[in-house]
Amino acid sequence: MLEGDRLALARLITRIENRMPEVPEIMRAVHPRTGRAYVLGVTGPPGAGKSSLVDRLTTLLRAEGATVGIVAVDPSSPFTGGAVLGDRIRMQTHTLDPHVFIRSMATRGSLGGLARATGDVIKLMDAFGFTWIIIETVGVGQTELDIVRQADTTVVTLVPESGDSIQAMKAGLMEVADIFVVNKADRDGAHALMAELRFSVHLHYTSGIGAKDVDWEVPVLAAQAVHDVGTAELLAAVKRHRATLEQAGALEKRRQARRRAELDALLVEEFTSQVTAWVQTDQGLARTLAAVSEGALDPYSAVQRILAGTLRRP
Amino acid sequence: MLEGDRLALARLITRIENRMPEVPEIMRAVHPRTGRAYVLGVTGPPGAGKSSLVDRLTTLLRAEGATVGIVAVDPSSPFTGGAVLGDRIRMQTHTLDPHVFIRSMATRGSLGGLARATGDVIKLMDAFGFTWIIIETVGVGQTELDIVRQADTTVVTLVPESGDSIQAMKAGLMEVADIFVVNKADRDGAHALMAELRFSVHLHYTSGIGAKDVDWEVPVLAAQAVHDVGTAELLAAVKRHRATLEQAGALEKRRQARRRAELDALLVEEFTSQVTAWVQTDQGLARTLAAVSEGALDPYSAVQRILAGTLRRP
Repeated sequence: MLEGDRLALARLITRIENRMPEVPEIMRAVHPRTGRAYVLGVTGPPGAGKSSLVDRLTTLLRAEGATVGIVAVDPSSPFTGGAVLGDRIRMQTHTLDPHVFIRSMATRGSLGGLARATGDVIKLMDAFGFTWIIIETVGVGQTELDIVRQADTTVVTLVPESGDSIQAMKAGLMEVADIFVVNKADRDGAHALMAELRFSVHLHYTSGIGAKDVDWEVPVLAAQAVHDVGTAELLAAVKRHRATLEQAGALEKRRQARRRAELDALLVEEFTSQVTAWVQTDQGLARTLAAVSEGALDPYSAVQRILAGTLRRP
Repeated sequence: MLEGDRLALARLITRIENRMPEVPEIMRAVHPRTGRAYVLGVTGPPGAGKSSLVDRLTTLLRAEGATVGIVAVDPSSPFTGGAVLGDRIRMQTHTLDPHVFIRSMATRGSLGGLARATGDVIKLMDAFGFTWIIIETVGVGQTELDIVRQADTTVVTLVPESGDSIQAMKAGLMEVADIFVVNKADRDGAHALMAELRFSVHLHYTSGIGAKDVDWEVPVLAAQAVHDVGTAELLAAVKRHRATLEQAGALEKRRQARRRAELDALLVEEFTSQVTAWVQTDQGLARTLAAVSEGALDPYSAVQRILAGTLRRP
């Protein structure tokens, strides 16, 4: 894969998706080659036109000579599957371009695992040499936000129709958005939504709540991706955000915080899996867990007992 | 508190909310008195009329002589705060009733912490002696689902307007709902939403995807909580679900699984906090973490190194 073999890249991604035992080895091997790509996240509710937007941005980036890896992540369960596939069909423009690589990922089991698998796929694409990586994820729930937090710049895409469902997630969106785009901006309600977003953004910016590490008032842009309206302005805003992060030294700080969060998640996962394995062989541990399940022992006492038996000061 | 002092209950809840160091001691002390209350969860998007519904259910339960503890949880950040407060005002009916106790909880820091704090508050109310505990939570995101998973029976409340935002969360809702209620059922679109839900529920039921531990096809009920229409039928459905769980022995099994999940979460949290504390004093550990933050070391190798230094077989 490090020699530019796309098929090898595709196969490694599949291993990561399936959480094969060789994942740690793969990630160790590619690690020295990571950290060069710029990662753009695009999120928003279903039907917001994210795929069209990603498609146009890819065209613009390719025209500049950039190479683009795209990860489309659908955190919904198999029960609602199909949305991503439909989206993919609209992105056929780039399927024959050897400098664009598109991969869809869906949930297999735990959603937490999906966020990490996405992170590992980004690193593979980064090591492969793509200069830009775009993560596209559908929805505005906690998991989607966790996924999109792995981006350097995050674009939240809304449409006039998404007004109601947005209210509930507004705090999360404000926290995660570096740029808002109101797509399908020719529709009724687009102006009202933009005005409302600008008001919220401005309030957020001036109040200092959730103050960010750079001086950046989140722009609210209009677009009609299918007619290629507003997409050049969007890319320009993304680049302005990138430059702002880089000048302030914030890009590296954000990436450091991200690496640390990734380590924490991995550490917890590995610790849990060790303890789970020990339950199979250690009778004392198994008895403690059974006592908690039956309600005979409170969980706080159990935790104290388990950690006393398994942890030692380094 | 165990002698029935409501003020003592309120103060203990505040300590739990603030994650005071004495929380483990408190929870150990109340543990033997827990496990008697029946826990009902009510969730749904903002504006679905959950508070009115909880208010009417409380009136019905009180008329039967039950005592009711209510925890209203708002997982949104302080930025969108206020929704819960507004809801509370509508529940004044019961504020003077000594056998009803209402408490609102909002997020303070991590959302994961909120789900566990809610669990601890439920236990306090349980130990206090309430026969029914109602958890009301706004929203249909992952965190809200985590909170409501602590209920024995979960009612998902929707309104005709919530159609669009529901699509994205449908799989999660199907997984968590024991009963669907379409509130404000006199509005346009109520019939269509009910028909759609019934179709999904039936498909889910007959497909065996996410098959539950009891033979229960999730009912889809209509209500107009503010006019007290459909609320008696809702309570009857809750009791039917309770009886079904109890007859199948599934109630105890669900509670066992919940206690186990709670233990796992607490174990992970305590492990993380121990490692975090060690970083302050152990230079080798601090160096490993710094190397990961700077990108010099991959997280998989770091985890292996850290666990080798801190874990021992029990």
